[in-house]
Amino acid sequence: MLTHHDVTVRVRYAETDQMGVVYHSNYLIWFEVGRVELMRALGFDYKLMEIEDDTFIVVADVHCRYHHPARYDELLTVRTSILDAKNRTLKFGYELLRQSDNELLATGHTIHVACNRAGHVKQFPEKYKQAFLRLAAANASRSHA
Amino acid sequence: MLTHHDVTVRVRYAETDQMGVVYHSNYLIWFEVGRVELMRALGFDYKLMEIEDDTFIVVADVHCRYHHPARYDELLTVRTSILDAKNRTLKFGYELLRQSDNELLATGHTIHVACNRAGHVKQFPEKYKQAFLRLAAANASRSHA
Amino acid sequence: MLTHHDVTVRVRYAETDQMGVVYHSNYLIWFEVGRVELMRALGFDYKLMEIEDDTFIVVADVHCRYHHPARYDELLTVRTSILDAKNRTLKFGYELLRQSDNELLATGHTIHVACNRAGHVKQFPEKYKQAFLRLAAANASRSHA
Amino acid sequence: MLTHHDVTVRVRYAETDQMGVVYHSNYLIWFEVGRVELMRALGFDYKLMEIEDDTFIVVADVHCRYHHPARYDELLTVRTSILDAKNRTLKFGYELLRQSDNELLATGHTIHVACNRAGHVKQFPEKYKQAFLRLAAANASRSHA
Repeated sequence: MLTHHDVTVRVRYAETDQMGVVYHSNYLIWFEVGRVELMRALGFDYKLMEIEDDTFIVVADVHCRYHHPARYDELLTVRTSILDAKNRTLKFGYELLRQSDNELLATGHTIHVACNRAGHVKQFPEKYKQAFLRLAAANASRSHA
Repeated sequence: MLTHHDVTVRVRYAETDQMGVVYHSNYLIWFEVGRVELMRALGFDYKLMEIEDDTFIVVADVHCRYHHPARYDELLTVRTSILDAKNRTLKFGYELLRQSDNELLATGHTIHVACNRAGHVKQFPEKYKQAFLRLAAANASRSHA
Repeated sequence: MLTHHDVTVRVRYAETDQMGVVYHSNYLIWFEVGRVELMRALGFDYKLMEIEDDTFIVVADVHCRYHHPARYDELLTVRTSILDAKNRTLKFGYELLRQSDNELLATGHTIHVACNRAGHVKQFPEKYKQAFLRLAAANASRSHA
Repeated sequence: MLTHHDVTVRVRYAETDQMGVVYHSNYLIWFEVGRVELMRALGFDYKLMEIEDDTFIVVADVHCRYHHPARYDELLTVRTSILDAKNRTLKFGYELLRQSDNELLATGHTIHVACNRAGHVKQFPEKYKQAFLRLAAANASRSHA
């Protein structure tokens, strides 16, 4: 049973800063890659979610803790799970791992609100909500195992 | 008579890379700041140009030559002029100067096409076109003086 | 007495996304602008802090809560304060305000660790530490007033 | 014989702007991905080129022509070739293709100068120069065939 989804990103030169490591805001962009690919693994295309279902997953809250720096050209795993799902909100959890030695570089979460194109809060369409709930339950089972 | 417009940007940490200088794609973002502020100096608000006049200045061509690197925290002048204006296209020129010693760090241009929201090419509304033509003429006079 | 520092940023086109609002990771870059300018108001130049004092303020933790979206071309105030200061760590707080109506768009914090160029944790040099402590105390007084 | 190298990128949400398409400066970041992967295909690791050979490929000139917009979530091919190689300079060419229909979205080039860590111009170490020359020759043959 799917409890989380892994996707690989390779650090781009543009993502580094003069400290010689990745600038910290880029981790949030990788988290975005992680949740989009998690949704694709669930059979959903976020692009169509916006276009066909008029449902935008707006970011309401972000947290990231940086344990070790990511560096240029490294291959990283973005491991994404769903921590919580409600009618109108969704919480993703993230672990960022360096593939060469499986070191945990960062952990984080994002909380999202379902909105329509006009920016008004709405409920997630049922197909999404059910899938999100199943994944949140599966992740909770894994965490408590 | 207005021939060009100067705007100041300060280099952000996020714009540097591990070479210790500004990553080159950021110059294009500063050029955008330059042309938006040039338009504001002409009395136009680019935001309203999109919303009220359904006219988007789509980038069709970019060139930038990098003479000397920009570095963290430096104050830079983006000097923007209009090199050419036609019914449907517009060409901006840019000089990027380091304020501490007036060193020319980069030069560039961008070519734009007027489009509506749907992405179809259109003519610039008359008020913009006349102002762009005047500025292009003024800049040509200056260059040839 | 200084309790916080305000700096203005104008939203760039590059910072928006196809939802028509600012992409959320850009708020972290504005927070960086905020803390650098707060330090400048304290008489410190972060660039020299790295070069002359071999002290880098590495980001260890970031949190941001998004209340209302920021939009293209808006003028925003980044209001930065020091929430806590210790020998080796520093916590900044941020409020992001839309200048047209003083609406609070986002709040956040960042936690930093002092490191040398090699990335090893160190103590803040005394001059910084004293200034940070004074500002943290001033901010605490204001908050509890 | 290798004449060019293809690498896939998927458009990230962060790369779009409020026009609903990719913001134009991001193409330059994809070009960087293209040339780094081309070098990897040649057996070179750009990271080690900096660290072990003290050779940085500094960007001196960029040009990009935008034919059709790239959009969120699209899979794109960055096709990179070497157009010219000299003792101290290197010119890459790029084609950006949309994978769904092979549409050519953009073309561009970058010119680079070999520098050491201190930013002084140097010659490319022989192993790189020979490989670059071979690739430039192979590409010229293909173009003239």
